[in-house]
Amino acid sequence: MITTTLTLLLLSLGFCKGGLQENYIDDFEETEEVEVFAQPSKYGSLWPLPQKVQISEVSFKLSSSSFKIVDAKQSSAGASCSLLQDAYRRYFEYMFGSGKRQQLNKGRRGGPSEVTELQVWITSPDSECDGYPSVSSDESYELTVTDQPYAVLKAPKVWGALHGLETFSQLVYEDQYGAKSINSTSINDFPRFAHRGILLDTSRHFLPIKVILANLEVMAWNKINVFHWHIVDDPSFPYLSRTFPQLSQKGAFQPYTHVYTPADVKMVIEFARLRGIRVVPEFDTPGHTQSWGKGQPDLLTPCYSGSKPSGTFGPVNPILNTTYEFMTQFFKEISTVFPDAYVHLGGDEVDFSCWKSNPDIQKFMEQQGFGQDYKKLESFYIQKLLDIVTTTKKGYMIWQEVFDNGVKLKPDTVVHVWIGGGSNEEMSRVTDAGYTTILSAPWYLDYISYAQDWQKYYKVEPLSFNGTEAQKKLVIGGEACLWGEYVDATNLTPRLWPRASAVAERLWSAKDVTDINDAYNRLSAHRCRMVDRGIPAQPLFYGFCPHEYKGI
Amino acid sequence: MITTTLTLLLLSLGFCKGGLQENYIDDFEETEEVEVFAQPSKYGSLWPLPQKVQISEVSFKLSSSSFKIVDAKQSSAGASCSLLQDAYRRYFEYMFGSGKRQQLNKGRRGGPSEVTELQVWITSPDSECDGYPSVSSDESYELTVTDQPYAVLKAPKVWGALHGLETFSQLVYEDQYGAKSINSTSINDFPRFAHRGILLDTSRHFLPIKVILANLEVMAWNKINVFHWHIVDDPSFPYLSRTFPQLSQKGAFQPYTHVYTPADVKMVIEFARLRGIRVVPEFDTPGHTQSWGKGQPDLLTPCYSGSKPSGTFGPVNPILNTTYEFMTQFFKEISTVFPDAYVHLGGDEVDFSCWKSNPDIQKFMEQQGFGQDYKKLESFYIQKLLDIVTTTKKGYMIWQEVFDNGVKLKPDTVVHVWIGGGSNEEMSRVTDAGYTTILSAPWYLDYISYAQDWQKYYKVEPLSFNGTEAQKKLVIGGEACLWGEYVDATNLTPRLWPRASAVAERLWSAKDVTDINDAYNRLSAHRCRMVDRGIPAQPLFYGFCPHEYKGI
Repeated sequence: MITTTLTLLLLSLGFCKGGLQENYIDDFEETEEVEVFAQPSKYGSLWPLPQKVQISEVSFKLSSSSFKIVDAKQSSAGASCSLLQDAYRRYFEYMFGSGKRQQLNKGRRGGPSEVTELQVWITSPDSECDGYPSVSSDESYELTVTDQPYAVLKAPKVWGALHGLETFSQLVYEDQYGAKSINSTSINDFPRFAHRGILLDTSRHFLPIKVILANLEVMAWNKINVFHWHIVDDPSFPYLSRTFPQLSQKGAFQPYTHVYTPADVKMVIEFARLRGIRVVPEFDTPGHTQSWGKGQPDLLTPCYSGSKPSGTFGPVNPILNTTYEFMTQFFKEISTVFPDAYVHLGGDEVDFSCWKSNPDIQKFMEQQGFGQDYKKLESFYIQKLLDIVTTTKKGYMIWQEVFDNGVKLKPDTVVHVWIGGGSNEEMSRVTDAGYTTILSAPWYLDYISYAQDWQKYYKVEPLSFNGTEAQKKLVIGGEACLWGEYVDATNLTPRLWPRASAVAERLWSAKDVTDINDAYNRLSAHRCRMVDRGIPAQPLFYGFCPHEYKGI
Repeated sequence: MITTTLTLLLLSLGFCKGGLQENYIDDFEETEEVEVFAQPSKYGSLWPLPQKVQISEVSFKLSSSSFKIVDAKQSSAGASCSLLQDAYRRYFEYMFGSGKRQQLNKGRRGGPSEVTELQVWITSPDSECDGYPSVSSDESYELTVTDQPYAVLKAPKVWGALHGLETFSQLVYEDQYGAKSINSTSINDFPRFAHRGILLDTSRHFLPIKVILANLEVMAWNKINVFHWHIVDDPSFPYLSRTFPQLSQKGAFQPYTHVYTPADVKMVIEFARLRGIRVVPEFDTPGHTQSWGKGQPDLLTPCYSGSKPSGTFGPVNPILNTTYEFMTQFFKEISTVFPDAYVHLGGDEVDFSCWKSNPDIQKFMEQQGFGQDYKKLESFYIQKLLDIVTTTKKGYMIWQEVFDNGVKLKPDTVVHVWIGGGSNEEMSRVTDAGYTTILSAPWYLDYISYAQDWQKYYKVEPLSFNGTEAQKKLVIGGEACLWGEYVDATNLTPRLWPRASAVAERLWSAKDVTDINDAYNRLSAHRCRMVDRGIPAQPLFYGFCPHEYKGI
C-alpha cells in the first residue's frame, strides 16, 4: 500500500484561464449563470454525489485480468440473481472494456497494492432480485474500498447494490501510465428523494426502442429511478393495445414501423427493472387524446359549429356509458401490461370549447346541475376514471389541474406539479391538502437556451415552498420532462444529457450539495464518462474530453 | 409513357390537423413563427428550390439494374474526371443504395416507361475538373428529365454538374409500390449569391475529422459552397503548423489526439473540393489568440498589474518586429496549405485593456502619435498584417470591426458583417465604401431557442438594407455561424441541420421564394432525406420520417 498525494490533473478538461471574449449578438439572451472553469473536484467524477463519502490519498491498482465482482458469501442474492450477474458484467465492461477511460482523480503510480475483488453483499433476507422497484424500495448502499484485499459493497436490496456498482465504477480512474486505479474510499449512500424521474414523450415523435433503451442505461448511470413514459398524446398513439388494436392501427404515425408492440413494452420494462428503474406509463385523458379518436369511434366529443357537427373532435366524451366501458377495459389491460404500482392518468389542459359547442353535452350539464361550470364536467369524468383505475388495484399520478379542480382523490395519489408560475404556492397547497407530490415545473428540459441551463436546474430546491415539516415530507421527488415537439432520435440524447444529470443530483444528493463550481467540475468529468461509454452527452461549455464522441 | 395525376401523399409527414395544446411554462419565450402543418409541395422535396423548375405529371421509372449516370459524348469532362466519376457513384448510392428512400411527390404506378440514363454534359471547354471552386465559379446547370430515353444534365463547369446531380437525386422518389420514379422535369438553375458558407469552430471544441467530413457532405446536399474553418481561437490551437509545430504542441487541448495534421487538412480540402466547396481558413488576430501564446513566446502582449507584469497576456503584441516576422512566415505557410484565394484574418473584438496596461505599448503609442486611441494601434497592426498577407497573393476576409476602424483595405477585401444590432446600416456603410460583403449577423446558429427558429433565418432578406443597385451587387452572400461554446461532436450535426438549410435556400433560391408553408413542406421532406442518408438532422416540429434515425 503506497500513500500518495493526490495529483489532480486537468486531463479531462482543458480550460483556459484567460477571459473568453465571445462574439455577441444583440438579441443574446443574458443569463445569470456563473461562469465556471474546470478544476478537479476532491470528489473526482462522482455524480450524483453520495450522501457520505470519504476518499483517502491511498490508491490501489485494478487489473482486468484478476479483478472480479462476486457475490459475498453472506449475501442473500447469489448466482441465481441474474439482475446482479448482468450488472457485474455491465460494470466490468465499463471499467475495463474499452481501456480508454480516464478520470480526474488520479493518484501517483503505486506499487503492487491491488484490489482484486469487489464483494457484493445483499444484507436483507429478501434481496428483491426478481421484483420490481417501487417508490418505497430501499436504494441505500455502503461501499468500502480497501485492499483487504476485498472491496465490499453492502446493500439491503439489489436496488442499492446497482447504485453502488455505478458508484464503484465512477471511482475507478487511470493513472498517468494508464493503469486502472482506485483510491481507498468509504461511502454511505442513499437518495434524498424516492421518486427521481425522466419523462420522455413518444407521441409527438416516435422514439425507436433502441433510443429508449440507451437512455434507460444513462438514467441508471445518473441514479434516476423512474421512466415516466408519456406514451400517447394528440399527435400519435404508438401503444399497440391487445384489447383495442385499432388505436395504434389508426392512431400511430405508421401502424407497423411506429408502434410499441407488447413485446417491445415488455422489453423496456425488463431492461428498466434490471437497472432499478420503474416504468410509469401515462395515458392522458380527457384532453390530449386526438390520436385516440381515430381508432375508437365515439370516444371523443364531436364539436359543433352552430347546430351542426363540424367534423372535428374535442376531449373524451364524458357523457356516454360507452366511454367508461372502454376505459374500464383499456385500463384493465394497462394494469396487467405495466407492473408498476402507479399509472399516470394525465388530466391536464382540458379545452372546454368543444364541450361547450355540443348540444348533448349542454343538455347533460343541465341535467346534472353543473350550470356553466365545465370544470364540474371535467371532474365528473375524472372521478369516474379514478374509480375505474382503482378497481385495477393501481395507484395513480395526475397532473396538478385534477387537484386544482377539486376532484376527490385517493390519499395515495401523487399530484404532479408542472405549471411554471406559482409552483411553490401549488406545492404548498397540494401538501397542505395532504397529498404526495412530485415537482417538474422548473425542469422542463424541452425549453432550451444559449446558456449553461443545467445550472438553473441544479439550483432548484424542491422544498423551498412555505410549509410544515410534515408537508415537506410529502414531496417524494421530481421529474425532468423532455416533451417531444422538437425532439426525436436525432437529437434527444445530447439534449437530455447532461442537462438531466443536474436534476438527478438535486434529487439524490444531500440538500447542502449546492457548490456550483464543484458541480461543474464533477459534471464535466461525468459527461466525458458518458461520452466514453458511447453516449453523445453534450458539453457544458468549451473544453474537451480525452476521447471525443466517435459517432457522426 | 403514362400520364398520371400526381398523387401527393403525406407519407413523410404525419401531422394532426387538430390543435396541439402543449404544456406551457411561464418563462416560455414567445416567438413569432408561423405554425405550419405539412402538406405536400408541388415541388416535392427540392431544397434549395431551383431558380426555374417545371415538374409535369408524367412519370417514369428508374431501375437500379439498368440506370446509369454517364458522361455525354460531347462533354469536356470524361472518364478521367474523377471528381465527376466519384459524384456519379455517390449519387447512385443515394438513389438506389439503401432502397429505403421515399419522397412526397409520388406518381401513380406507370407502365414500362423508363429513364435509363442521366447524361452529364460539361459544355465549357475547361470543365475545371481538377481545379478548385472559387467565388467566381460558374455553378449553373440545366436538367431535363424525359424518357428520350436519356435525362440530360448540362453545365458549363463541373460545379454546376455537382449541384445538378444533387437536384436529380432529390427528384427521385418511390411510388406506392416502392418503385423508383421520377417525373418529367425541366430545371434551369443557378445560385442567387456566390458565397454560401457555414462557419464551424474547432477551437472551443475539437471536432474530429469524421465530423467535419460528414458535415461537408451535408453542405453539398444543401448547395453550400464555403466551409469557413474557424480553426483556432483562444481556447485551443489544433492546427498543426509545419513551420511552428509548437503552436499546437503547446496550444492544442491535446497535442496528438486533438490536432489537425497537414494530412488531415489536405483531406478536408480535397473532400470539400470534390463537392464544390471552398475551404476558407480563419486565423483570427490580434485578439482571440490566447492559445497562440503558449507555443510562441513573446507573440502576445504581457499585461501589467501596476508596474509589474501580471503573468497574463493580451492580444498579439503589435510593437515588436518579431511579431511581424512570425506572421510573415506563418501566413506564407497558410497560403500554401490552403489553396483558396481567400484567407479570413479575423480582427474582431480586440480588448484594449492589456495594451493599455503595458508601459512599452504606452511608449510606442506616444512615439507614433496615437494619443490614447488604441484603435489606431489596432489599425497599425492590421495594416501591417494585411500587407504581409498581400505578399502571399491571397485575398482576405475580415470581420466588420476592421472596416469600422478605418483600416485601409484592398479593393477586393470581403467585409464580414456579424454584429446583430444595426447590421442593415453596416451593410449600407460597407457597400457604400465600395467593399464586397457577406452577411452573418442574423445567422448565428449557436443561439438556440424553443422555437422553429429556422423560420427566422429563412425570412432574412440580405438585400433589405438601404443602398443603390450597385451597392447591393457587392453583397456576395452570407454564412451561417455555429460557434463552439456549447457544440462538439455529440450535438453539432443535429443542431446544424436543418437549421442551416434555411440559410442555404435563402442564399441559393430566387428572392421571391418566401412562402413559409411551402418551405416547411419541402424542408420537412428534405430533413427526412438527410436522416435517410444517415445524418441526424433534427425535426422541425412534431411528426415523423418513414425511417427514423438509426443511431442512438
